[in-house]
Amino acid sequence: MSHDARRYFDLPSPFRMKRGGELHAARVAYETWGVLNDARDNAVLILTGLSPSAHAASGTADPSPGWWEGMLGPGKAIDSQRWFVICVNSLGSDKGSTCPASIDPATGEPYRLTFPELSLEDVADAAHAVVASLGIERLACLIGCSMGGMSALAYMVSHPGSARAHISVDTAPQAQPFAIAIRSLQREAIRLDPAWDEGQYDIHAGPDDRRYPDIGMSIARKLGVITYRSAMEWNGRFARIRLDPEQRDDDPFGLEFQVESYLEGHARRFVRTFDPNSYLYLSRASDWFDIAEYGHGSVLEGLKRICIEQALVIGVSTDILFPLEQQEQIAAGLQAAGARVEFVALDSPQGHDAFLVDIENYSRAIGGFLARL
Amino acid sequence: MSHDARRYFDLPSPFRMKRGGELHAARVAYETWGVLNDARDNAVLILTGLSPSAHAASGTADPSPGWWEGMLGPGKAIDSQRWFVICVNSLGSDKGSTCPASIDPATGEPYRLTFPELSLEDVADAAHAVVASLGIERLACLIGCSMGGMSALAYMVSHPGSARAHISVDTAPQAQPFAIAIRSLQREAIRLDPAWDEGQYDIHAGPDDRRYPDIGMSIARKLGVITYRSAMEWNGRFARIRLDPEQRDDDPFGLEFQVESYLEGHARRFVRTFDPNSYLYLSRASDWFDIAEYGHGSVLEGLKRICIEQALVIGVSTDILFPLEQQEQIAAGLQAAGARVEFVALDSPQGHDAFLVDIENYSRAIGGFLARL
Repeated sequence: MSHDARRYFDLPSPFRMKRGGELHAARVAYETWGVLNDARDNAVLILTGLSPSAHAASGTADPSPGWWEGMLGPGKAIDSQRWFVICVNSLGSDKGSTCPASIDPATGEPYRLTFPELSLEDVADAAHAVVASLGIERLACLIGCSMGGMSALAYMVSHPGSARAHISVDTAPQAQPFAIAIRSLQREAIRLDPAWDEGQYDIHAGPDDRRYPDIGMSIARKLGVITYRSAMEWNGRFARIRLDPEQRDDDPFGLEFQVESYLEGHARRFVRTFDPNSYLYLSRASDWFDIAEYGHGSVLEGLKRICIEQALVIGVSTDILFPLEQQEQIAAGLQAAGARVEFVALDSPQGHDAFLVDIENYSRAIGGFLARL
Repeated sequence: MSHDARRYFDLPSPFRMKRGGELHAARVAYETWGVLNDARDNAVLILTGLSPSAHAASGTADPSPGWWEGMLGPGKAIDSQRWFVICVNSLGSDKGSTCPASIDPATGEPYRLTFPELSLEDVADAAHAVVASLGIERLACLIGCSMGGMSALAYMVSHPGSARAHISVDTAPQAQPFAIAIRSLQREAIRLDPAWDEGQYDIHAGPDDRRYPDIGMSIARKLGVITYRSAMEWNGRFARIRLDPEQRDDDPFGLEFQVESYLEGHARRFVRTFDPNSYLYLSRASDWFDIAEYGHGSVLEGLKRICIEQALVIGVSTDILFPLEQQEQIAAGLQAAGARVEFVALDSPQGHDAFLVDIENYSRAIGGFLARL
């Protein structure tokens, strides 16, 4: 019954990290779809947001739907009949890659907060090592969504010539203070939960285990969902509709409106499926990312160091976490770097999450771009 | 040393509330500026946001600056040399009015969660009783800011003919799902703090008392500040500036960016200055408010039941909590009701809080409107 399409790549040991730490015997989980051609020039790499696994879509080994099921597969926008598609689970994520919940070979105990400081450059380097291990010198296209878009910028700036084309989806060239504030508060909610216990909660806690920061993770997730969607969507979807009386409990401050129940459902599905320490590390890595570090403090100059032939940059006007102006910055920077750039500004109502929901418009943009490569 | 300009009005007992409860021997705190003229037709009432007290500005009895110091006083936009200005502390707030932290005369113990369900209609009715007690039949102008703007709509719809003019500042004719989601999460952060203890924390806790939900209140306040300001302001104000090393502690997930320190400062100044149960009651009352209840489910029809001569409606394009479209709804509804309406859409970068910060532009609009009355 347990389907698993993940493969694993053992990173060179030690794997040296941007901020000075190193990992020993670390590995990266990934999945692939399609077939690498003899010229090895049809590879597409997808770098993910903070929480998704490498299971972007179903396949023969794992027929369960993936997080980008509508976008990837035979005949879909990212067509696995033409492309050899790789999706990597970020280093530091608990979906198969080495992360703070993994065993430190030096101690035989989980790393927890002794995990080295993680940056998105490390996520990118680990993904690049996977691609190289598959015998691919140059990607046909590098796709990055949300946090993965920042990882993709790190990938391209650190590994010149590693990709011919790039698709940037709902991301940012640097973390801005509003996004930092949101993520900082999410981390604080986790850290202030007494059950987090300085990272010493029960790892791999099942539903009956007690020592897991449910409250902090629930607040963090709800705040995430609030910033991943948009007020406009919710006005249409939830308005002021209340729950049926039988859906409510006696708590005078309990759930009353549908929007509250929606958030509660999201939180319940998330809590206990993600390692809290890994969440903290990846969240902080997102705050740290700044392409301007590669451009003497200038975002534009940093982006100009990225050498690709063409790019598609997509953003959404309703995204409050990665606002459209940041997508415009990326487009302008890649253009200034010499790439042919297509810029698509959508007005999908779903906010930052539109790339996961408005498959029709994202398919048209991404499928069209890939078809013209 | 202890200056206090508050006066108190004892509400009729019992004071019956919208949702069925009643209060006995309840009172409302308020402050006044200026002199009521013989015709009793120069009174201006200010209804506040969720957390401010009645101390809107300094005066002879209390020379400390008030929360709208730049706006109210001799020669200022709300000119206390012309107007007799009243600011009421909302019923249910802990700044002098009867609230969940007050003693229930029936038990001799604080109400806590036995406080009756509070609505903004009750806040409005209590304020109206204060005004009537001062011998004022009709306000020259009713001003409502943020939550106070919703209370003002309740005031006018429940008490026809009680105001000649109205100034609506950064508010809403009904709570929309995005605002409900934010407030629901703030309440959840407080309620999930074990120190909240189902409302049984130490009331009037000093800094050394332990049993107060500091964590929950801190998270609630930070989330509030995030939604009261704007991403645009913070890009200019904080960018990615980091704290000096000596401002940082050893916590690997501690404060690093200036924006995080800014939020921390706001939280520290707020926590322990506001009663958590009162916060819960007022926050929930904001979610409940819906002028459409007076218009058979239609916001427009509800607003059309408000009978005033003229109105000024102000909003800010950067406000994500009370978006500009909601100010437009109010303006359109009051106009449809027959009022002469001026609508001012500002582009102050400070978001919802602009009315407290961008005194120059708010003064021009409010002062100009009042001068023409």
